[in-house]
Amino acid sequence: MVYLTRLEHFNAAHKLFNPAWSREKNEDVFGKCANDNWHGHNYELYVTVKGEPNPDTGFLFDVKRLSAIIKEHVTEQLDHKNLNLDVEFMKDKMCSTENLAIAIWQQLLPHIPPEITLHAVKLYETPRIYVEYFGL
Amino acid sequence: MVYLTRLEHFNAAHKLFNPAWSREKNEDVFGKCANDNWHGHNYELYVTVKGEPNPDTGFLFDVKRLSAIIKEHVTEQLDHKNLNLDVEFMKDKMCSTENLAIAIWQQLLPHIPPEITLHAVKLYETPRIYVEYFGL
Amino acid sequence: MVYLTRLEHFNAAHKLFNPAWSREKNEDVFGKCANDNWHGHNYELYVTVKGEPNPDTGFLFDVKRLSAIIKEHVTEQLDHKNLNLDVEFMKDKMCSTENLAIAIWQQLLPHIPPEITLHAVKLYETPRIYVEYFGL
Amino acid sequence: MVYLTRLEHFNAAHKLFNPAWSREKNEDVFGKCANDNWHGHNYELYVTVKGEPNPDTGFLFDVKRLSAIIKEHVTEQLDHKNLNLDVEFMKDKMCSTENLAIAIWQQLLPHIPPEITLHAVKLYETPRIYVEYFGL
Amino acid sequence: MVYLTRLEHFNAAHKLFNPAWSREKNEDVFGKCANDNWHGHNYELYVTVKGEPNPDTGFLFDVKRLSAIIKEHVTEQLDHKNLNLDVEFMKDKMCSTENLAIAIWQQLLPHIPPEITLHAVKLYETPRIYVEYFGL
Amino acid sequence: MVYLTRLEHFNAAHKLFNPAWSREKNEDVFGKCANDNWHGHNYELYVTVKGEPNPDTGFLFDVKRLSAIIKEHVTEQLDHKNLNLDVEFMKDKMCSTENLAIAIWQQLLPHIPPEITLHAVKLYETPRIYVEYFGL
Repeated sequence: MVYLTRLEHFNAAHKLFNPAWSREKNEDVFGKCANDNWHGHNYELYVTVKGEPNPDTGFLFDVKRLSAIIKEHVTEQLDHKNLNLDVEFMKDKMCSTENLAIAIWQQLLPHIPPEITLHAVKLYETPRIYVEYFGL
Repeated sequence: MVYLTRLEHFNAAHKLFNPAWSREKNEDVFGKCANDNWHGHNYELYVTVKGEPNPDTGFLFDVKRLSAIIKEHVTEQLDHKNLNLDVEFMKDKMCSTENLAIAIWQQLLPHIPPEITLHAVKLYETPRIYVEYFGL
Repeated sequence: MVYLTRLEHFNAAHKLFNPAWSREKNEDVFGKCANDNWHGHNYELYVTVKGEPNPDTGFLFDVKRLSAIIKEHVTEQLDHKNLNLDVEFMKDKMCSTENLAIAIWQQLLPHIPPEITLHAVKLYETPRIYVEYFGL
Repeated sequence: MVYLTRLEHFNAAHKLFNPAWSREKNEDVFGKCANDNWHGHNYELYVTVKGEPNPDTGFLFDVKRLSAIIKEHVTEQLDHKNLNLDVEFMKDKMCSTENLAIAIWQQLLPHIPPEITLHAVKLYETPRIYVEYFGL
Repeated sequence: MVYLTRLEHFNAAHKLFNPAWSREKNEDVFGKCANDNWHGHNYELYVTVKGEPNPDTGFLFDVKRLSAIIKEHVTEQLDHKNLNLDVEFMKDKMCSTENLAIAIWQQLLPHIPPEITLHAVKLYETPRIYVEYFGL
Repeated sequence: MVYLTRLEHFNAAHKLFNPAWSREKNEDVFGKCANDNWHGHNYELYVTVKGEPNPDTGFLFDVKRLSAIIKEHVTEQLDHKNLNLDVEFMKDKMCSTENLAIAIWQQLLPHIPPEITLHAVKLYETPRIYVEYFGL
């Protein structure tokens, strides 16, 4: 079994804000991430799939097709968007990197072909902070 | 003469939008950068100063003081902010990387001590796009 | 379960030297890493914790608190220090990257809150050499 | 148990081409990677070994020896070579990153000393595509 | 005046070989870069233009248009190609990074719009070797 | 005229300390960089030369020879050393990155062949701090 990883990017705005809480409590918990007028990031997304290479191609999976699946179901829906306002699959969720990584997994899973298995989603919010989700 | 460069970061939301134009023209010119609900970036800011090293310290300038000047006058005013709405020194300007780099130079210039000269501001919007300004 | 990773830095001096051995044997085994007058590195430290995101915040754990724990118990005790001479928790240990990674794990473990689990310490000595420790 | 990783490099030419297929089918499946006159990459190779540190040295394994093993059995045989034409251990294999990572594992395995265990081979073809193999 | 830089990539095969010389002399001068069966690289290309920002857009130049110009006239002609055999504008030239950077400048220059000036081409052959050309 | 740059590395210990000053004043000026027991860095050194490519080779200069010159006259004298104690050409100098960059220029200059010109020395002390010297 081999593991194949593809890196994709998106740039987005968001804020961390729990509407059940007062502004004071939000600022207390989320600090400047609760800024009412949003902030944003260059997100870097690593998607890993695993399985057996195909003997005819030597490929586990055509990385161009993997890239196309990630773009269609994830990054084109997130790039140059407001994660809290514009993204159907983040509606009614706290917009943390943790929840975003889990939602990206759920977006990808139905579109991964049967010959491979989705193994990991790794999402950098900044070069110094990242979250990984393995579906478990 | 030696040149000393310090890297600082900030994360911010913005959009590209000319209020004198229709929404259609804005989308035509700026594409998804005109998204009404904003998007954002992890900006990387390199500030370069030049001059003669001090013989007692070997320093052109104490890099911790340079970092403190950049933080006070630039990055603390930009980090986790909306560049179009929250930043006094970007008011009434198109919020392009070009204009942001020039504005950062203008913010820094009055606070650079006389023994050194501000040489360059280099601002990455993404790992693949950056702007430089030399004050000329 | 999600995994959250934070990157911190420290710069330190050290040498590799077994006091039970002759200088010749030390140079034989450790080469220029045994230089009597020390050498040093910019260490990069990745700390990974795991657990369930909190539904109120979307956070596995507040990354600013994680950073503060790493700084208090690890990097402030290592940064701009001599790892062989100045660091209580490295006393009487060979100062290899392997032993340093294990010692960092042991420093962190008592300070990780019960709602999360320490998963990994990954320590780069140079951009081409790193050690990982998972506590097992 | 600790894990030690070493990064090595090699630059090579290759193409993706299945000789059992027509040129049309090769171009259909492999696109520009099937270019008859080859293309190439700067490959980055991470090799990870695991085991217990030696109490006398603090080392899991001398990273210079690990580097020498990788160079002798892998990178000196691949660097500035044509992977399809010049490399004995890639003969009669589809020259994908997946197959190359597996072949590198097989090249290394007989030369890993008994006190350590080969854990992973991670091979970047470009900064955005990598393959991992764990021997399983 | 501001400077705007865009990074593009291409992967290509080449060799260094002077047909006026014997194989021995080529190997003497170019070492393993003269390998008859080619080798290759992931090239990284930085193109810098300079000028005055447009007051209506804040842009020196639309970076998407700059990217399109680079792709059409340079990277689509180089990517997944053999630089010695497949590239019209490298015919009859020694295929060094120096000559490639100069040829890229010459390819771009006629397609740079009059409102901006081509300032620099910076070409990485590996992460440790790059060439710059300023047209002078 | 083209510019060719080569990156080399060295790891070293140092401290910032002016022997004409009291310990208090040193700590006041240099902070933790004055730690009596030293600290250290992974330095990254970019050396740029300029000139005309040779028509027979396409090279401005053989980058392997440039690397060998840098290694012989600079990095082999600095790597795994104490910059204050072990390095002849830093004796009696404040061991700042500024002074180290200037000293590296002076070490290299007599060994640059007449057909090329030394253009720049760029020295990273950490990924966020670098100094450039152009000999002027």
